[in-house]
Order: sequence, then structure tokens, then C-alpha cells
Amino acid sequence: MKDIAILIYDRLTALDAVGPYEVLSRLPGWKVTFVGETKGEKRTDTGRLGLTADATLADLPHPEIVLVPGGSGQEALMEDGPVHEWLRGAEESSQWTCSVCTGSLILAAAGVIGGRRATSHWTALEELGRLGAEARPERVVFDGKLVSAAGVSAGIDMGLALAGRLAGPEVAQAIQLGIEYDPQPPFDGGSPEKAPAEIVEAVRAHARL
Amino acid sequence: MKDIAILIYDRLTALDAVGPYEVLSRLPGWKVTFVGETKGEKRTDTGRLGLTADATLADLPHPEIVLVPGGSGQEALMEDGPVHEWLRGAEESSQWTCSVCTGSLILAAAGVIGGRRATSHWTALEELGRLGAEARPERVVFDGKLVSAAGVSAGIDMGLALAGRLAGPEVAQAIQLGIEYDPQPPFDGGSPEKAPAEIVEAVRAHARL
Repeated sequence: MKDIAILIYDRLTALDAVGPYEVLSRLPGWKVTFVGETKGEKRTDTGRLGLTADATLADLPHPEIVLVPGGSGQEALMEDGPVHEWLRGAEESSQWTCSVCTGSLILAAAGVIGGRRATSHWTALEELGRLGAEARPERVVFDGKLVSAAGVSAGIDMGLALAGRLAGPEVAQAIQLGIEYDPQPPFDGGSPEKAPAEIVEAVRAHARL
Repeated sequence: MKDIAILIYDRLTALDAVGPYEVLSRLPGWKVTFVGETKGEKRTDTGRLGLTADATLADLPHPEIVLVPGGSGQEALMEDGPVHEWLRGAEESSQWTCSVCTGSLILAAAGVIGGRRATSHWTALEELGRLGAEARPERVVFDGKLVSAAGVSAGIDMGLALAGRLAGPEVAQAIQLGIEYDPQPPFDGGSPEKAPAEIVEAVRAHARL
């Protein structure tokens, strides 16, 4: 079994991690493990849910796939330290290095992205650019083995795109049908280009808090 | 704060619960709590993730919203017992009673759905009908205060639809933009009507195991 390590930490956004997990955990021959600086429960950004890290960074130094979700806890992971060291070590040998939402800011701060093309939550694209990446306002961005998704729910689309690369389109389609991913959002406003300007400004102001 | 209780149990499908959680936990004035028959970690259907139940059923007998996710562990919750008793008690006073995926089978088995219109994962609609519900192959079904979603990822759409009812369309749109829910699935095959026949049969055969 090849390893997919999803990094979790306190104040992550749950769906950033659980969206791709739900897709990638269904891939034959691959095993998803939630890893943390320490084992045990990590609380999400709302404080209302705990997810368990089953392994430490040291337990999985060289997963074939490393995936970094975002969330408000990202801000505490922008300084060099054990997580950055682990990400740099994992990047040396990974087949794919992935992020969802502001997880790309952590990858960039760790020196893993360099000048490659990447995306992030739409409110974080400027910061991603300041960190040296070529920031792209796209839902899923592939640049070599670096794969990044836009905000929160985009990790599902990234997971399916990656599943297609790893196991072929038939397997990816079966997973998509298995999780009945035939989205019918009630509003056509899930991106800043489509949402009404006053809603964009309200969300942007809130994100700055 | 009004209470949203999300029931979790061993072998649930994580995204069934985390999709609506990610939406509803952002609603002003509402508080999401993950509840279980016992407190502590519940392992998901893949065995690869633990979610924490912070409260027991007895801690939250009358939440304003009760939400039941699905997953292979649903089969162990079809007999009468503490979960069914709790669901019947919660239904007496709830403002909304909700399910995602095969969570509707648990609600139906507990006697909560009766003959109302409801949906479930597409592979479970026949069983839902046998349990007395008017099973509908739709993504989100409202019947009075009963709200049900189709398989796994449909809980996100349900959460946003419910957010619109609870807090108005502006708040729901802001949440949708906050989680950047502008889905771009790589395949147009997330429902059995749209997917190729051989993929539908492969997924159906797997679901029967």
C-alpha cells in the first residue's frame, strides 16, 4: 500500500481535509493516514469538532502523497519548525505534494512551492504571491507534482482529479458516483467572480479578522 | 444559541457529517455538537479517521436541529434501541430533522419518517421505500420539517439550502462563498442518470457487499 499523509493541526478547516480524504481513501492500493506534530485529537477552526491524528510526522517521513489542508491554524504554522522540516523532507521523495485552501501558504512558507504555479482560498491569493508562488485564481492547479486546490470545498474536485491521474478515469468516475458528487449548489455564487459584490466584500472583511 | 446535534457512530461516512457541519457551523446563533451513544472517538467506514463525539445522546435530548449521516455503520443502527429512542424524542421538539445518505434509513427505521417524502444514497432508495417513506431520487428533499440529502456529498447542498431557510439567502450565499463552493467535478457522472451504465453497475455491485 502506498501512503497518503494528510497533515492535521489545531484550528484546521475540517472539510479541507475530509473532502480529499473521502475521495482518496477509496483508491485501491492507497492508504490515507492523518498525521500531526503529536498524535491524538486536533480541534477544528470552529472548535466544534475533533479529528484524530493517528501518526506523528516521524512515523511517516516519506509518504508518496502529502496533503496540507488550511484553516485559521495555518497562521501558527508559518514559522520554520518541525512541520516545515517534515514538508521539505516529504517533498524530496513524494509523488504528489498537495494543498487545499490556505494549506498552500504553509507549503510556500516551508520553501516547498518556490516559484511554481499554485492556488489557495481566494482571500489568500495575494499572500501566496508574496510568498513567491505564481498565484492562480483557479479551482485546481497542477504544476509538475505540485497540486493545489482553492478554498475548502475545492479539495473534493482536487481529490477526484488526482484519483484520475493515479488510477485512471474509470476508477475516479466510480468514486465520484459512489460519493454521489453531482453538485447542485443553491446559489451560483461560490467564487468571487460570480457572487454579488456586497457578499464578496462581507466575506473578505470577515476573512481579514 | 440554538443547538444542531449531528449524530456520529462507528463506521459513518465522514463527509456525510462534515459537509453539513462545515456549512451549519458558520451560522450565527447556532452551535453544532457532535453526539454519540458514548462520548469519544468514532472511527469512519474506512477505518482511517476518527471523529470525536463531544456529548452523549442524553446531553442533548431536544436539539433544534438533529442530523443523521450515513455510512456502513448504519446497518448496526436499524434495530430499536437508544439511538431510535433519542431520534423519536428529538423529532417531537425539533425545528428540522435531517439526514444525509443512508442516515435516512436510520430515521425511517426509528419510525421518524413515516410516509413522508425523503431521499438517500441512490443505491438505498429501494430500501428507503420498503421502510415506508416516499423515496425520491432527488438531491435534497424537503417535506415539512424533514430534510434529507442524497449520497455523501449532497449534505453540502442540503446544508446550504437549510442555511438559506434559517438565516436568509445573503447569509447562505456568504457561507457558500466562504467555503468557495463553486464545484467543478472532473466528470459529469455524479448521479446514476448521468454516469456510464458500466460504472453504475460496478458501484451498485460494490454497495451490495
